[in-house]
Amino acid sequence: MIGPGSTIGILGGGQLGRMLALAAAHYGLKSHIYCPDADSPAFDVAARTTVAAYDDEAALATFADACDVVTYEFENVPHATAALISRHAALHPNARALATTQDRLEEKTFVASLSIRTAPFRKVSSAGELAQALDELGRPAVLKTRRFGYDGKGQVIVTPETDPEAAFAALGHAPCILEGFVAFEREVSVVAARTADGGFAAFDLCANEHRNHILACTRVPAGVSAALEAEAVDIARRIADALDYVGVLTVEMFLVAEDGVPHVVVNEIAPRVHNSGHWTIEGAVTSQFEQHVRALCGYPLGSPDRLGRIAMENLIGDEVAAWPQILRDPAAHLHLYGKGRARPGRKMGHVTRVLPEKG
Amino acid sequence: MIGPGSTIGILGGGQLGRMLALAAAHYGLKSHIYCPDADSPAFDVAARTTVAAYDDEAALATFADACDVVTYEFENVPHATAALISRHAALHPNARALATTQDRLEEKTFVASLSIRTAPFRKVSSAGELAQALDELGRPAVLKTRRFGYDGKGQVIVTPETDPEAAFAALGHAPCILEGFVAFEREVSVVAARTADGGFAAFDLCANEHRNHILACTRVPAGVSAALEAEAVDIARRIADALDYVGVLTVEMFLVAEDGVPHVVVNEIAPRVHNSGHWTIEGAVTSQFEQHVRALCGYPLGSPDRLGRIAMENLIGDEVAAWPQILRDPAAHLHLYGKGRARPGRKMGHVTRVLPEKG
Repeated sequence: MIGPGSTIGILGGGQLGRMLALAAAHYGLKSHIYCPDADSPAFDVAARTTVAAYDDEAALATFADACDVVTYEFENVPHATAALISRHAALHPNARALATTQDRLEEKTFVASLSIRTAPFRKVSSAGELAQALDELGRPAVLKTRRFGYDGKGQVIVTPETDPEAAFAALGHAPCILEGFVAFEREVSVVAARTADGGFAAFDLCANEHRNHILACTRVPAGVSAALEAEAVDIARRIADALDYVGVLTVEMFLVAEDGVPHVVVNEIAPRVHNSGHWTIEGAVTSQFEQHVRALCGYPLGSPDRLGRIAMENLIGDEVAAWPQILRDPAAHLHLYGKGRARPGRKMGHVTRVLPEKG
Repeated sequence: MIGPGSTIGILGGGQLGRMLALAAAHYGLKSHIYCPDADSPAFDVAARTTVAAYDDEAALATFADACDVVTYEFENVPHATAALISRHAALHPNARALATTQDRLEEKTFVASLSIRTAPFRKVSSAGELAQALDELGRPAVLKTRRFGYDGKGQVIVTPETDPEAAFAALGHAPCILEGFVAFEREVSVVAARTADGGFAAFDLCANEHRNHILACTRVPAGVSAALEAEAVDIARRIADALDYVGVLTVEMFLVAEDGVPHVVVNEIAPRVHNSGHWTIEGAVTSQFEQHVRALCGYPLGSPDRLGRIAMENLIGDEVAAWPQILRDPAAHLHLYGKGRARPGRKMGHVTRVLPEKG
């Protein structure tokens, strides 16, 4: 076990790294944040910081040697970086979880191999392959780059009017995946933690709403049947087990009704704490950030029990200007990430309200 | 108002400064910790740190110039230090609150001037004055240094057998106060916040148990009548108003029964967040640390509502070795302060349990 006074290394200095560092401090742990950007929000709450590129081998080795365990706040950690760190310190979640989740084709292939539903998908390496895939999956469909997509970046919708050549060119001829259209009724996510010895704890299912491909709000309970929620949690558990996963993992899912029968379809796996789990800071006995730290350090997981009816709203771009009004609501928990400029689409903070359960 | 991205300066780098810095981060604020000890627990979660003595005028001025508001985690901030900082930045709580609470004679005189009960007391500047005071207040009584006492340090009990000369010598002939013995039934505290515009919010009354003069545990509710709790809160409010106080203030009190009538007797004022308020991190809608930050920055106070039945236990010295067992209790919130050696009497952490209210 990694005891008090030890150091957790975190690759990435954004709000997730920042909230991880705050949680680590509760347990008497120090955080060492590694980020190329000298103006990283997480630096403000870290015992140590390293400003260096993710491919700076000397800096990575020095960083990992100074840490008792290393984790990350984003899934696009390069394979070579993960491999290098693993030679100097324990890395959780492991390199396989990273490799699987940072490539949409690998990810969907892995999920399908567990007999878990995904959108139908095809590998696309050329405009010709795209035309062929469109014949098989039909239109509309979504063309996505295999790597480096987030918040709607790196994807185009292919309608009956779309020219396949143009769509493939729009994504820079990068290796892609074509996903068949899923007529979903709801977007949900399971945020769960797994320990090295197979301990598992899931938070209650989150119902998510997106605006412009960015999470806008999360509500819990999600308002689905107990059977469907159990199916969703079971899927997350099977994924975590198959990856021999250590830490918090998030599985984004669609709820679809096929011939009137509700089903869960996996959309995406995030090998990390997740925006849809921010409500757990005040809304659950243990937060997702504390759970991740517990798993990293070999501690038993805490209780994921929910403390009320949850409404979490993101503060995106200029929405953050409402902070003085939010502070006047005595039930609102305001979180600001310490970022400077409120650029459009930038996640500046969030607000969580924990309301009494409906009688 | 002090907006996101601003810097809160904190004099003192112990666990209170650490938990204040963690709370400040929730609001997107940076912390700058000033402490003479290079190995301060609060440094691990601060954006900036200054290691310098509390009488280093150049360092204090540079520090205060870099902060938007300055506060402190201990009441023994020298008067000259407070005055110097006040010339460079807003200091909350104000210099008067410091001067009043860092001298037991000033403090009791101030409280008595508000027609609030204290133990009977006399000024003691010599062994002769001590003998005279003992004639007036009787024995047993408690002789305390006027300044720099905490956790039972700087005090001796004067029994019928005690030689006044020896007692006064045992405290180094320092300026003292003699306090008449109070036969108290319970020790309680009010932790409350006041804003510059007179806003006030008190947490529920805390019932405290001490071992070896150090707080061992706090339970809430305190189990006293609503009338007595209201009297205690009213006393805290009158004290805060009279000091034109901004921030969190703690009033330690004794509950005594005079001729069967319960009364509140003020023992001590702490011009700061307080160990008996640590339970508010998980046990109240807003924590004492968040409340203090809100008051400092000119924000409205948050809700002090309690979320359950509270049991908070300190981990003193070697008691911290129980941390692995505590982590196995899914209802226990473990807080470790990141201190190195577990010396006897050293506060290493605390555990809070938030239990369902009794039906």
